[in-house]
Amino acid sequence: MTNSVDTLLIPGPIILSGAVQKALDVPSLGHTSPEFVSIFQRVLKNTRTVFKSDAASKSQPFVLAGSGTLGWDVFASNFALSKAPNKKVLVVSTGTFSDRFADCLRSYGAEVDVVEPLKIGEAVPLELIAEKLSQNNYGALTVTHVDTSTAVLSDVKAISQVIKQKSPETFFVVDGVCSVGCEEFEFDEWGMDFALTASQKAVGAPAGLSIFVCSSRFMDYTLNDSVNGQVHGYFSSLRRWTPIMQDYEAGRGAYFATPPVQLINSLDVALKEVLEEGLSKRWDSHREMSDWFKDSLVNDLKLTSVAKYPSNMSAHGLTAVYVADPPSVIAFLKSHGIVIAGGIHKVIGPKYIRIGHMGVTACDKNLPYMKNCFNLIKLALQRKK
Amino acid sequence: MTNSVDTLLIPGPIILSGAVQKALDVPSLGHTSPEFVSIFQRVLKNTRTVFKSDAASKSQPFVLAGSGTLGWDVFASNFALSKAPNKKVLVVSTGTFSDRFADCLRSYGAEVDVVEPLKIGEAVPLELIAEKLSQNNYGALTVTHVDTSTAVLSDVKAISQVIKQKSPETFFVVDGVCSVGCEEFEFDEWGMDFALTASQKAVGAPAGLSIFVCSSRFMDYTLNDSVNGQVHGYFSSLRRWTPIMQDYEAGRGAYFATPPVQLINSLDVALKEVLEEGLSKRWDSHREMSDWFKDSLVNDLKLTSVAKYPSNMSAHGLTAVYVADPPSVIAFLKSHGIVIAGGIHKVIGPKYIRIGHMGVTACDKNLPYMKNCFNLIKLALQRKK
Repeated sequence: MTNSVDTLLIPGPIILSGAVQKALDVPSLGHTSPEFVSIFQRVLKNTRTVFKSDAASKSQPFVLAGSGTLGWDVFASNFALSKAPNKKVLVVSTGTFSDRFADCLRSYGAEVDVVEPLKIGEAVPLELIAEKLSQNNYGALTVTHVDTSTAVLSDVKAISQVIKQKSPETFFVVDGVCSVGCEEFEFDEWGMDFALTASQKAVGAPAGLSIFVCSSRFMDYTLNDSVNGQVHGYFSSLRRWTPIMQDYEAGRGAYFATPPVQLINSLDVALKEVLEEGLSKRWDSHREMSDWFKDSLVNDLKLTSVAKYPSNMSAHGLTAVYVADPPSVIAFLKSHGIVIAGGIHKVIGPKYIRIGHMGVTACDKNLPYMKNCFNLIKLALQRKK
Repeated sequence: MTNSVDTLLIPGPIILSGAVQKALDVPSLGHTSPEFVSIFQRVLKNTRTVFKSDAASKSQPFVLAGSGTLGWDVFASNFALSKAPNKKVLVVSTGTFSDRFADCLRSYGAEVDVVEPLKIGEAVPLELIAEKLSQNNYGALTVTHVDTSTAVLSDVKAISQVIKQKSPETFFVVDGVCSVGCEEFEFDEWGMDFALTASQKAVGAPAGLSIFVCSSRFMDYTLNDSVNGQVHGYFSSLRRWTPIMQDYEAGRGAYFATPPVQLINSLDVALKEVLEEGLSKRWDSHREMSDWFKDSLVNDLKLTSVAKYPSNMSAHGLTAVYVADPPSVIAFLKSHGIVIAGGIHKVIGPKYIRIGHMGVTACDKNLPYMKNCFNLIKLALQRKK
């Protein structure tokens, strides 16, 4: 791998800050050494903070070696392989990643209903969700806060209120893979029971870590002998991991499987950077960059956003826009050293491009990446005329 | 994390070579970019070579974000959640990690028989294994090549011959976590169906990757609709990952879950170093270092090895020896900047210490780590007299 790499503007993995990247280049530490325990302890505490969950709520943070996808498995297996009778899940789908979560749930035997928006690029109307919750008894509801395939932002706060009114016993599960660290996110306040992200997204760390938080209510469920007396599965079992995470957070080493010490050291630096900047300020930075970029594409270049824009259904960590010939735009940018992504939606996949703007790309105002990206998209489109 | 860290002589994570550590400090790459595809392609090809499996055998290598433990889940879930009728597994146990693999298998519903050695520290007699295979119809047999809890080395080649004679249809599963890269290991020649390791052991890479190879026979089983028509599980599903790994090995990007690009870049350098040295030479280097260290402890210091020594039941990547007061020895070494591990066996756990000597520690003859370690153990024991 050379050091003269392209500017990576896909919706994850994202460009790392210099300090985060440098934090990978450290010798291996013993996984139960006092030095590593203190790093992992801080990571778990800061994970709570970034998810906006207070230790007093008795929620439980987890950081495991794996991909974001593993978080789906953890919820799906601990929920659906339990002895609890209600395995019915309502999936609020705004794109490919919501549908994949549904697929994961089904693979563990959950009975899945999917509710979709009226039109691709919109969020699912709250009334549809309310109606479903009134008609059925769901054990869980999942929503993908930002579906990375469409850049649709769902109103998690509003959905939490609908659940509270219509079906308060339903577990509220939020896929925050493209949102934690760049969108307003309130684990405790919005009554989430399980929320997940991946390290290579808006928390600004390298890929390779699955990060999630469980509410005390979901922990009671999953650790309850009458519900989960027989442990199902192993690497994704919350019963196996809970004492490990509790020990590390309390400052004691513990072992179930070896943690990736360099990745966790890098995540430690990333989370510190997020919290030093301040969560609200970071959300604002992403919003400002996103608004500028989307305004430029939509108003100056007359492009159409996949996620309705302007609206409150539009993500702030990435942009998806229709262009006439996506491969040529992607290739033109690549030839100028900028990597963006194509569409991946089952219906509209070949018709649009996706540009990620999470982490330093959005927060460090001195970086010219997004301006350069816009100029190159403009050039690419002019060339086609 | 400071740079003046202790010398890490636990049986994994191990000390990285300078180049392997440095290979972590690279910018994020797009996971389907040509640059990353070429790295991952080489990693998969070299994984085959390190496991001694030829592409012509139609085996399939996998490298996933996760811990070594995840490899157990992959075998256990794909084997035991299938529709195939025979879920009976014979676990050849030589310590804690063999027992944990048994636990993992049970958690997916496998019916597990465990066969143990006559005495802790020995391998399981081949006659016992043969007897079990004659009396029962096992779908799979698992053996932990080196059990990291006891440093017992099992004779995988001899076990493979017993299987071939007594029960050739039984899947042969080898946990090579403390052996691939430091012990003679022949995936194809010894008729393995599933073998796994973890990145932070003798292949010399950072923790965070689960590495395993499946035989064509096991691939046929797991991809067979009548056996596995309904996909079970998600992140550990071979059905999901197989097309991804096949695409990367063929030089095409593919996506199921985001690979940890920096870790894979580092593993790439580690595997190249292993193969540049040459596998046979590397096995010899580990054997030489191990013999010297064990001879010194057993002959000079009159210590007793947990795994019978000298014998062919003794591992070459780590040493486990009984000492009168393990915590004081461990603390004395730590106070002199060397980190070793305690025992973790259910019966003899508190009575011994474990020292890892995998990777550069064994192969780079200029490094003084093992000599220093021996001298400090000697000093620690003299102080106690």
